[in-house]
Amino acid sequence: MGDQAKIQSAQTTIVRNDAFIQTADDLKPSLFYKGIRPTQIVRVQSDRTAMHDWRAVPEAEIGTLENRAFGKGESVILDFGDHRVGYVSFDIKPVGSPPDAPLKLKLTFGEMPVEMAEPFSSYEGWISSSWLQEETLIVDVLPRQVKLPRRYSFRYLKLEVLDTSRKYQVSFRNITCTTVTSADLSNTLPFNHADPLLQEIDRVSVKTLEDCMQDVFEDGPKRDRRLWLGDLRLQALVNYRTFRNNDLVKRCLYLFASVPDESGRVSANLFIEPHLIADDTYLFDYSLFFTVTLYDYYLETNDEATLNELWPTARRQVELALERLDERGIVKDDDTWWSFIDWHEQLNKQAPSQAVLIYALKRAIPLAKAVGCKQSANFEQRLTVIENATKESLWDAEQGLFVSGDQRQVSWATQIWMALAEVLPKDENKALMLRLLSANPEVGPTTPYMYHHFVEALIVVGCREEAVDRLKQYWGGMLTDGADTFWELYDPQNKNFSPYGSHLINSYCHAWSCTPTYLIRQYEL
Amino acid sequence: MGDQAKIQSAQTTIVRNDAFIQTADDLKPSLFYKGIRPTQIVRVQSDRTAMHDWRAVPEAEIGTLENRAFGKGESVILDFGDHRVGYVSFDIKPVGSPPDAPLKLKLTFGEMPVEMAEPFSSYEGWISSSWLQEETLIVDVLPRQVKLPRRYSFRYLKLEVLDTSRKYQVSFRNITCTTVTSADLSNTLPFNHADPLLQEIDRVSVKTLEDCMQDVFEDGPKRDRRLWLGDLRLQALVNYRTFRNNDLVKRCLYLFASVPDESGRVSANLFIEPHLIADDTYLFDYSLFFTVTLYDYYLETNDEATLNELWPTARRQVELALERLDERGIVKDDDTWWSFIDWHEQLNKQAPSQAVLIYALKRAIPLAKAVGCKQSANFEQRLTVIENATKESLWDAEQGLFVSGDQRQVSWATQIWMALAEVLPKDENKALMLRLLSANPEVGPTTPYMYHHFVEALIVVGCREEAVDRLKQYWGGMLTDGADTFWELYDPQNKNFSPYGSHLINSYCHAWSCTPTYLIRQYEL
Repeated sequence: MGDQAKIQSAQTTIVRNDAFIQTADDLKPSLFYKGIRPTQIVRVQSDRTAMHDWRAVPEAEIGTLENRAFGKGESVILDFGDHRVGYVSFDIKPVGSPPDAPLKLKLTFGEMPVEMAEPFSSYEGWISSSWLQEETLIVDVLPRQVKLPRRYSFRYLKLEVLDTSRKYQVSFRNITCTTVTSADLSNTLPFNHADPLLQEIDRVSVKTLEDCMQDVFEDGPKRDRRLWLGDLRLQALVNYRTFRNNDLVKRCLYLFASVPDESGRVSANLFIEPHLIADDTYLFDYSLFFTVTLYDYYLETNDEATLNELWPTARRQVELALERLDERGIVKDDDTWWSFIDWHEQLNKQAPSQAVLIYALKRAIPLAKAVGCKQSANFEQRLTVIENATKESLWDAEQGLFVSGDQRQVSWATQIWMALAEVLPKDENKALMLRLLSANPEVGPTTPYMYHHFVEALIVVGCREEAVDRLKQYWGGMLTDGADTFWELYDPQNKNFSPYGSHLINSYCHAWSCTPTYLIRQYEL
Repeated sequence: MGDQAKIQSAQTTIVRNDAFIQTADDLKPSLFYKGIRPTQIVRVQSDRTAMHDWRAVPEAEIGTLENRAFGKGESVILDFGDHRVGYVSFDIKPVGSPPDAPLKLKLTFGEMPVEMAEPFSSYEGWISSSWLQEETLIVDVLPRQVKLPRRYSFRYLKLEVLDTSRKYQVSFRNITCTTVTSADLSNTLPFNHADPLLQEIDRVSVKTLEDCMQDVFEDGPKRDRRLWLGDLRLQALVNYRTFRNNDLVKRCLYLFASVPDESGRVSANLFIEPHLIADDTYLFDYSLFFTVTLYDYYLETNDEATLNELWPTARRQVELALERLDERGIVKDDDTWWSFIDWHEQLNKQAPSQAVLIYALKRAIPLAKAVGCKQSANFEQRLTVIENATKESLWDAEQGLFVSGDQRQVSWATQIWMALAEVLPKDENKALMLRLLSANPEVGPTTPYMYHHFVEALIVVGCREEAVDRLKQYWGGMLTDGADTFWELYDPQNKNFSPYGSHLINSYCHAWSCTPTYLIRQYEL
């Protein structure tokens, strides 16, 4: 998920469950640290064939850094060899006369070469510029060991001496990034694939998850470090096939369940620091993903105690979603930001949300049966009504596609979610996806998140070859464009796309983009 | 003294005296801390009648601050009621939705309203912009208590929210400056004067010394925190009449004596952090002031043990100065920055330096006698030669003034130092100062440092009324122009004067400007 969902001003009352919070606290993961040194000195050069028109090229061996002295206006860009999430420290040594004025030093961290090239002061997007990773330090006494207290997500670090004095320069030593993750690499399942591109896509997917796995499953370590439900669901699926830290999934489920609102609805995301806070953003699809994530967790772990404790929360999300149905059995649409689905600005959310509800109901029913809840029968009954209503009201027989909203919008998202929800019989479901490919409606996927669902839908309906082709094309495209970890946003037709108004602020290591590993391993692509 | 003396590139070998360093360490002063809150909210407005064309005017009561919330681009200026030197802490509270992006906050500290009004980015002076007191903080987690690690020298603090997010604002609480000084206010001599202006000048002088008295006698707490010999000499004189921390003078003398160069010459200034370092700046007049400061210290304390230990260093400064004499007995001039005297750019240093040597010799001789050093006879002999040479070569009988350098420059500094050195008989010395006043040569005093010597010279020659008038006019002028503490630079004819290329970087609490208290109390003006 992206961050800073559009503003909701409602004052919400949160009902805390302290026992759940305690359970979540007890499941805090161990963190693994590792000291990483930069591998080379680079410069960025303009290149129209490169992502964002900027390419990082080698400038000098890293060993030459210690012997360089930097005066006012001089800078250097260090390449840490791969994407890193961690804490940076270094030593500053004065060169020349004793320093007779403080050192003013600017540090700029970037996941991508563009962040080294385009000044952050040019940023005019609508989300906060405070996400742009930079620091300005004023150091009174030299030599000095600097330990920056904040965590950064980056591959490149620019050190820029804004001022010293006429009498001295500075040199930099022992530059280290102490990386941090809760992913236990020693517990990782080994994986080889005959297709080298799928093997590489899998490797980068795993690295992406590793860098997002912290105290919770984070959204994107550069920018939004919160726990989002939509991302959690996908990270959990990848985690089951890789690091197998199932307790971290359990912890995150308990966190969501511990701070619902008065109606029992779980928030779309949580703040972990300074203490657990439910954000005042509630999304129809994300709330339902609590139920889906619990279903996936139970399927993976068979952990009945957790299922029993969290079932009331899971059931409540479905009940609340059902309350949104109109007399026909179709979720009410409105103009607010009530459901996420994807970042596409023109996307109507009604039909895909309807499909998410069906998808969730089909997982809530077996859970209800597993815990012996009487709701199962009711849910089954409602499911029939809803599926019929969907085919009645949202199906356009002429086009052979589902439509959404007053304007009867035909979007990729609607067909994809309807296919995943398996509203149509198997053959028709496959025909739906093939028709989507040939019709190619204008409102397409804008994120790896939507693309994941697209590829999975192709697999579900039986179009495995097409699924593999599309996966290799999309995530392989990111690799060709220089991804060290997979990106929050990637539109091959518009590579500078950002829902925030600037590609500078996009996240280039984003949880919802790490799913190829799940798709490849789970479906044995 | 100002900072960042012009560059000398000579590699100097320092001969450390560890026993002296130990003595100095043992004399480290106690520091006194006090929590100070801001007194009002102000704004700065353009005003052609105000210093630097900017005036701070009340905007709101300080009590209203807690209830104000600040979003992107909003700022507030706090007035701490008087000049402060210390450490700033405050609490930041989020207002609105949970903070979904870091806070980017800029803090600007200013001794004068102009520092709140003109952006530091406009600074283009030749000394380092890193002295301009500002910080940019990026805060990931709110609420947060901020304790800034650096010490600031200021009266005004501007808090400026560069960015939050659309979902929250911030408010500020418990803003405190923990002031620091080694001046023991409880040990201060009480002082009252019938003239309210002299009383006020005395009060502000004492405050200036208080804010400059730290671990050593600092030059100016905003910018140059080093220990400079020229400033030490004057601070010691004021200290004897006020805080009476004679051990701090002793500590500073031992510090200078512990790191001379191979020839025994003491540096013009010392760095105290990260450890004691002699700066590679050596000045003819400043080195001699070691001897003068030891003389004043001995006169005040009668501390024979210190005199005996430090006499060799004091004697050596005189010997080295004598080595600079030409065959006539006149100090050699050159084009380097070999002697300080004053900041005036056209000032020739030869004749005033000659006078400083005579002034120092006249104090070295009684010290030599006090320790029973055989040099006293030699020094007396040399003094006669030098005084005669001065009257022979530097006296312009036609003008009745002393001249300096190849161009036979007539400056204020030359006459003032010749008067202080008492080269002429008493009557002629007075006539010299009166002639200076009427001739009013173009190369005048540019600093309170030079102005101090001007007023003291008037007193020494017996022009007490003129001295008092000039003192009230000059330091009283600073008060009228808004001084909370006395300034490094003040030229009533050119109030924006800065030897550094910008009045933004001038120091507005400067040790060498605190001398009125000494002049008023010592000479009972």
